[in-house]
Formats: sequence, C-alpha cells, structure tokens
Amino acid sequence: MKHHCTLKHDIFKEFLAEFLGTFVLVLFGCGSVAQTVLSRNTMGEPLTIHLGFTTGLMMGVYIAGGIWKFPIYVIAQLLGAFAGAAGVFGLYYDAFMEFTSGILSVTGINATGHIFASYPGRHLTILGGFVDQVIGTGVLVLCILAITDKRNIGAPKGVEPLAIGLIILGISISMGMNCGYPLNPARDLGPRLFTAMAGWGMEVFSTADHWWWIPVFGPLIGGITGAVVYFLLIELHHSDPSEKAQQKPEEEEDEEEDEDSSLRDKYEMITMG
Amino acid sequence: MKHHCTLKHDIFKEFLAEFLGTFVLVLFGCGSVAQTVLSRNTMGEPLTIHLGFTTGLMMGVYIAGGIWKFPIYVIAQLLGAFAGAAGVFGLYYDAFMEFTSGILSVTGINATGHIFASYPGRHLTILGGFVDQVIGTGVLVLCILAITDKRNIGAPKGVEPLAIGLIILGISISMGMNCGYPLNPARDLGPRLFTAMAGWGMEVFSTADHWWWIPVFGPLIGGITGAVVYFLLIELHHSDPSEKAQQKPEEEEDEEEDEDSSLRDKYEMITMG
Amino acid sequence: MKHHCTLKHDIFKEFLAEFLGTFVLVLFGCGSVAQTVLSRNTMGEPLTIHLGFTTGLMMGVYIAGGIWKFPIYVIAQLLGAFAGAAGVFGLYYDAFMEFTSGILSVTGINATGHIFASYPGRHLTILGGFVDQVIGTGVLVLCILAITDKRNIGAPKGVEPLAIGLIILGISISMGMNCGYPLNPARDLGPRLFTAMAGWGMEVFSTADHWWWIPVFGPLIGGITGAVVYFLLIELHHSDPSEKAQQKPEEEEDEEEDEDSSLRDKYEMITMG
Amino acid sequence: MKHHCTLKHDIFKEFLAEFLGTFVLVLFGCGSVAQTVLSRNTMGEPLTIHLGFTTGLMMGVYIAGGIWKFPIYVIAQLLGAFAGAAGVFGLYYDAFMEFTSGILSVTGINATGHIFASYPGRHLTILGGFVDQVIGTGVLVLCILAITDKRNIGAPKGVEPLAIGLIILGISISMGMNCGYPLNPARDLGPRLFTAMAGWGMEVFSTADHWWWIPVFGPLIGGITGAVVYFLLIELHHSDPSEKAQQKPEEEEDEEEDEDSSLRDKYEMITMG
Repeated sequence: MKHHCTLKHDIFKEFLAEFLGTFVLVLFGCGSVAQTVLSRNTMGEPLTIHLGFTTGLMMGVYIAGGIWKFPIYVIAQLLGAFAGAAGVFGLYYDAFMEFTSGILSVTGINATGHIFASYPGRHLTILGGFVDQVIGTGVLVLCILAITDKRNIGAPKGVEPLAIGLIILGISISMGMNCGYPLNPARDLGPRLFTAMAGWGMEVFSTADHWWWIPVFGPLIGGITGAVVYFLLIELHHSDPSEKAQQKPEEEEDEEEDEDSSLRDKYEMITMG
Repeated sequence: MKHHCTLKHDIFKEFLAEFLGTFVLVLFGCGSVAQTVLSRNTMGEPLTIHLGFTTGLMMGVYIAGGIWKFPIYVIAQLLGAFAGAAGVFGLYYDAFMEFTSGILSVTGINATGHIFASYPGRHLTILGGFVDQVIGTGVLVLCILAITDKRNIGAPKGVEPLAIGLIILGISISMGMNCGYPLNPARDLGPRLFTAMAGWGMEVFSTADHWWWIPVFGPLIGGITGAVVYFLLIELHHSDPSEKAQQKPEEEEDEEEDEDSSLRDKYEMITMG
Repeated sequence: MKHHCTLKHDIFKEFLAEFLGTFVLVLFGCGSVAQTVLSRNTMGEPLTIHLGFTTGLMMGVYIAGGIWKFPIYVIAQLLGAFAGAAGVFGLYYDAFMEFTSGILSVTGINATGHIFASYPGRHLTILGGFVDQVIGTGVLVLCILAITDKRNIGAPKGVEPLAIGLIILGISISMGMNCGYPLNPARDLGPRLFTAMAGWGMEVFSTADHWWWIPVFGPLIGGITGAVVYFLLIELHHSDPSEKAQQKPEEEEDEEEDEDSSLRDKYEMITMG
Repeated sequence: MKHHCTLKHDIFKEFLAEFLGTFVLVLFGCGSVAQTVLSRNTMGEPLTIHLGFTTGLMMGVYIAGGIWKFPIYVIAQLLGAFAGAAGVFGLYYDAFMEFTSGILSVTGINATGHIFASYPGRHLTILGGFVDQVIGTGVLVLCILAITDKRNIGAPKGVEPLAIGLIILGISISMGMNCGYPLNPARDLGPRLFTAMAGWGMEVFSTADHWWWIPVFGPLIGGITGAVVYFLLIELHHSDPSEKAQQKPEEEEDEEEDEDSSLRDKYEMITMG
C-alpha cells in the first residue's frame, strides 16, 4: 500500500519534470524561430535558431534531470510542448498580429506555422523526409548514449546537459536543411496541435501531403536504430565476455541482463532529446 | 558586539561584490550594444549583443560569487549598473560624439538611448511588455534554480556561471524581440538613470508611455512566478514526504522549513541574473 | 590462447569505435558544408561549417573514447569517413538532385565536390598547401597534447572532447582559407573516395594538379612536427631530471622510457583529430 | 649549486612555455583576422575574429599552464608573438601576395598591417585609446582573478582556460570597436615588430600619431588597476580579520603577507592574457 503510493508519487513527479523540461525546450526553440521570422531576419538568423534549440535542450535537461522515461510520459511531453508553443504565442502576440495582420497561415510570405512545427523543404520527398528523421534522431541517440556512457570517456556529472545541447547544435547545422530537426514526436506534434487549435486550422496537418506523421514516426525508428548501432558497435565490447565467462560464468548472464536493461533504460531516457 | 561587527562586515562585503558583479555585467552587455549601434552594425550584430550579455553574466557571477542577496543589495546593483553604464560611455566617448554629433537622444536614426536601457518595439503594447518580462524572468529564475539544485542533475561547482550565462543566450535569442531582455530591475534602471543624468534627459523615462516601470516591476512578478513554478513542479517532489513522515515524523517539519528557507534563499540569490 | 582472443577482441573493439567516431565526425562536418552549399548560403555560413566540424569532433571523441590508435586503425577511419560521406549524400539526396540537376561535379557554379573533400583556393600553390597542412595539423596535435597532458593544466576527465573540439573551431576560423582544414588523411581521403565512386568521377583526384595527396601526407608531417615541438618545449621539462637522478637514478631510465612511450601513445591517440 | 641549476631549469622551462603559449595565441588570433581580411569578408566576420582570439587564449593557457610570470618572461612572450605572426604570414603567403599584389601597407583599401597589430579607429583620440586599453585590460585582469580565486566561486581545475577564453569573447564583443583589443604589450608589439621587418616598414610605428605605445603602456596601467580593484572590493574581504585577530593574532600577519604575495603572484600570472 505504501509502496503503491510511492510509485504513484514517482510517476507524478516524473510527469511534472517531463512537462516542465519540454515546456522550456519548446519556449526557447520555437521562440528563437519566432524572433527570426517575425523580425523578418533582422533580429535572428539560422544560427540563432540553432542556438535557441541548443540552449533550450540544455536547460530542458537540467530541469527534467535524469528522469526521462518513455512511453508513459509521452503525454507529459506533448502537454509541455503544447504549453511551450502557447507561451511563444503569448509572448509574441503583438508581433504575430502585426506580422500576419491577424491571418494565421502555414504558407505564403507571411506564413508563421513553421515557427511551431516542422514543414518539409520544397525539394524533399516523403522518403527523403523519413530518411532524414531516421538519420538525425539516430545520430542524436548515438551521441547521447556516448556522452552518458560511464564505461566510455563520458561527460562529468552535471556537464551532460551542456554536451547534449551541443549535439543539437551539430545536427541543426548539418542536418537541418530538409525539414528543420524535429527529432522528437512530442516536440513537433505538441506545437502543431496548438497551432491547429489557435487559428492556423487543420492545414497544419494536411499540408505537404500530410507531412505531420513523418516527424512523429521517423524519430521512433531513428531512435531505436541509433541505440542498436551504439549497442552493437560500442557497448557490447566494453567488457570481454569470453574472458569473464571463464572466471565467473554465473555472473555473466546477469551482466547480459544488466546490459539489456541498461540499454532499455537509456533509450527510455533519451526520448525527449 | 563582535557578532554585530561581523554582520556589518558581511553586509559590506556582499555590497561590494554585488556592485562589482553588476558593473561587469553592464559593461559587457551594454558595451556590446554600443559596439553594434555606434559601428552601424559593421562591428556587431544581434548575436554579438546576445553573447555580450551572456559572457557579462558569466563573469558577473564569477565575481559576485554565491552571495547575491535581495532586496537589501538592490542599491549595490543599481550603483554597479550605473557605474557600468558610465564605463561604456567613457570607453566609447569619442565614438558617441562622432555618431551623435553631440546630440544624445532616444529616438530617431541616431538614437543611442537603447544602448543603455530597454525600449519597447513599435508593435508592443503595455500588456504585451509586462507579459514579456514576466515570462522572460520567470524562465530565467526557473533555469537558475534547476542549474543550482543539488537534488536535480545540477551543474558542477564552479561551472554554474557558465551554465547560467547560457540561459541568457537562450532567452536573448528567443525572447529578445519585444524589448530586449532587461530581466532585472537594477540592470535596466541603473543605466537609464545614468542616461537621464548624462545628457539624454528625462525623455528616457517619459518615452513610450513611461515604459521604464515595466522592466522594473515585471521582473519582480516574473521572478516570483518562476520560483513558485519550480518549487511546485520540481522541488516539492524531490523527497517523498508521505514515506518519511511515517519513519521520522519529527524531522518532517524541519525539512519543510528547510525547503521553505531554501526556496527563499534561492530566490534572493537570483535577483541579479 | 586466451590472451590471443582478448587481443583480437580489443583490436576489433577499437576498430569499431574508430569507425563510428569518424562516421559521426564526417556526418556532422561534411553535412554542415552540404547544408551551406546546397541552400546557397541561406541556411548556413562559414561559421556554421566551423561549428559543424567542431561539434562533429567533440562527438567523435565521445564516441571513440580514448582509444584511438594509429596506424592499424587507419582503415577503420577511412571506412568511417566513407560511410559518413555516404550518410550526407543519402540525407541530402533530394537536395543534391535539385541543386545539381543530377550533374555531380567538382568545378563550376554548381560544384558539390568540396562538400566532401578539400580543394585548394585559387591563390594556393602546392608548396603553400603543404605548409598549410603541416602548420594546421601541427597546431592541432600541439593543443591536443596540452589538453590531455596530466602534468600541465589539462582538461578535467570527460571535458577533453569539448576542449579538443574548440581547437577545431580555432583552426577553422584562423587557418581555413587556403583549403579548408582536412588535418587528417582519412577524414579527407575517405569522402573523396566516396565521391569518386558515387558519380563525381576521377576528377576528384586529378583536379588542381592532383591536390588530393597534400591533405594525406601533409598532416602526417604536421602531426609529427607538432608532437616533437610539444615534447621538446613542454613535456621534456615537466620533471627535473638532474635532481631526480641524484635521488633515485634507477628510476630515471624508466621515466625516460615512460616519456617516450607516453609520447608515442599520445601521438597515436590524436590521429583522428 | 644544485638549487641554482634547478632555478635555471625552471626559468628555462617557463620561458619555453610562455613562448609556445603566446605563439599559439597569436597564430589563432591574427590568423582569424588574416582569414577575414584576405578573403574580403567572405570567409570571416567580426565574430569569427573574436572567436579566434577566444580559442587562441584558451589553447595558449592550456599550453603555458599555470606558469605565467612577469616581467622576466616578457621576452618569451615577445618572441612567441613574433613567431606567431611569422606563422600567419607563412601560412597565408600566397593569399597575401594575391591580395596585396606584393605591396604590404598599413593604410588604404588593401591594407594588411591591422592583421597583425592594433591601429586606432578614425574616431579615436589618443586619450580615448589610452582609456580604452586601461578599461579593457582592467576588466580582463578583474575577471581572471575572479575565475582563479579559490575563495570565490572559481572555475574547476582544468576549466579555467575555457572560462578565461570567454572573457576575451566578452571584451572583444563589447570593447573592440575603438582599436581592437590588444590588452597585452607583447601580443601587440611582437607582431608589429614582425611587420616592420617583413616589408610593411616603419610606418607600423609612426602611423596614427605613433599609436604603437598605447597598447604597450595602457595594458600595464589597466592590469594594475584591475588587480587593485579586485583586491580592494573582493579579496580583502574574503576572511574577517577582526574576528580572526582575536582568536589567533600571530597568524594574522602571515595571512596578510599571504594575501599580498598571492596578489603579486596572480598579477604576474595574468600578464599574458
């Protein structure tokens, strides 16, 4: 009974942390796009947008701590991202009204939908978009696993958020030209839902051949791919199983289990990134 | 009696540290705006201004250490910000004279008042400006609390100033389009007082519907909001009260007191940021 | 027999780590060039390219850990760089097709070969290119040795990848105008091989007076030069041999051996950078 | 006798470290100016120059370690800066020849003298230049003292070079418009001597009313000012003398001596920055 209460409390605690971390990530990230778009590039540029998501993720990780879990907290992330988008809209409400003359749209010279969610570049095919999200999220997960791998070089405790943020800087600079870098289902879908409800309408889902599902499902495949690649190429080889098997065969199985659960924990941990 | 002397010395010590920290923050921050404005954007750009406040806050925190207190040291911060503005004016006196032909004003093509204090963008309403300062300062306080929270992931000792500086980078890039990012009453009011006295005149207070009070009172509301949000969503849940209450109920109350005073201390600590 | 297996496993492990680290370095680095070139500078600029290689090296070091070895793993690096180039081509396949109209070339207004490998600026002579690579790689090795030198100030454990990445930022900003900054035989030759096979043809080797061998052999000379300079000017003087020789002459020789092997190990370690 | 040898060895060791550290600082810093000027701003911009000096100082501190001494090593710094300038000229010899058509000058549209040493902006008076160097170097010394002050918040061991480099980023962005940011006699005079000898002629000394002595003597005054300010406002108050005097009056004097020598050591330490 007491255990049950504790569990419920832990879930509630992690739910709130997930919510607040994703809120800050989207507030900084989408806010930096808003500042660039609404000022017609006079107060922002691609690099400031990249740095907005970079610092947003850094701070999101500091806030949400080491307690990111998937998939039960995907709701918390969705709500956090939705609230972050609302925050950006509230913060820049006057600027939105001036920029759009009150007409919120996802296409045209005064389009503002791409402030909140990803839309594909004109050159991009559906297959290209899916590949983009698989590669981008795969590399993100790969690098997070390396940075937090205590048996690799690893970032010191408390410095991981800074190092993880720099992955986003790298990805945004090198893989951002196709469709931005959503890289997380909730980060993209939450703000898209907000725009659908706040005046941009259902076009946010229907436009570009129903693009919206690519940044939702692509990152899932990409995340798993990245985790598997890191496991097969790096983690699997940290200890020498053949040697240890001879010395203490009974612990060997445990270790494998540990590796499996460690892999699972880690993948759960990185779903927000 | 001895205790009284020590207390007076501690207050004096913290007063000086506050003063010098805010001086450097404003010297770097307003200096970077001066470099950009006075060179007519040839030697600066929005990003360099953001980095000026970022590094300024980093260095201000290294100088003022962990001894920031509010509200008794608000005078120290005001004086430090005033002195920092004077430093910028002294450093670029020749450039100011050339740029302005000696006419110091807050509006027009040769305006220089916005080098020192915040002024609202044309699109901004009074309500929008107040919301801007509440959200911006709220997020700042939220992130500082996360970075310095020893029960969260937390930045390592001595790295906090670097991480805190990166919050300013994030905020400036994502929330700077409305009115800059004053985020601290003293940082904005001190330099504004300097300009009022150094030749810009009382227009620095009267312009834009007496804008000056927004960045003075908005950050106060925002700071409290951010601290309350972090407390309610994160800090409150660090330990499980229900479980501990059963084991050692007499310590429970102390802990709650600790949490309250810890919250109060932390909020005092962040008033400069 | 058991020892033999362990050795083989260790080689295999390091081979995979080398491969994956170089893959990520090239994916980030060449990806950032691709984003800049293919967007015709609207979504990238020189600074984002520099930051792409900077973050790429940071992450490559976190992935490959402290197990970089040369020369037996040069094959792993070549394959990793080749795979990274293939990743960039796959990621931006649609954009490549639109930008080039399907004609992949190394010269002309729609040239894309320089996304993957280095080509000299028009002003550069062969001698100038060789000197460029010797100085650039020399400084890279010099700085890596300083950052990882435990008897110098040294970066903390786990922070080395961040500091090492910043060397690349410095070099790219100060020594990138002649021919980019290949600085590593495999990083340049791997992607060049990919372009030769993927449609750019043998021109990638023949163009600019067979430039390709400069970034292959220049870095080798430069790396050795940098290591020798650091050894002679800094490492050699860390301990005072004359004093120690009197106290414990029998350990003196060991120490010299240690210094030799340490130097060798360190040079092997930095071949990827 | 043995002590004499050790002392001589220590001086030699520090001389070499000073030399190499300043060499790298100038190679990165002046190299980034060269890349920007010689490419006519296509491969560089003010921000890349700032980052060039930032990373240059970071790496210079990692190389020279904690052994910077003044004034006996000013010769080492001068030689290092001279060699760094020669390195930049060698690296970009082809580009210099193309850019200047072989005519090396300090004025005019093809001027290249300012790649190596500081020259004042047109708006700057002699007094303004002197004030600029006093304020700039004063703040630099102030911040270095804060970052390395173990009784303040302080950067962790091995992270100081990164934090110190960020001071340069801040200063260059906020105080660089008058005359760049020489901030160190040797860093400016060494490369100026190189240009005088390498073909730019004595104009490098005579131009702008013999400007050359300002960045030589201004930083000396500024450095002392910054150290005195930090001592009076921060260091002096770290411990409470009145209280300790009562408890252990005999140690009190020692502590004061320690503080004096600590101040002296620290000032010696920062002369390169």
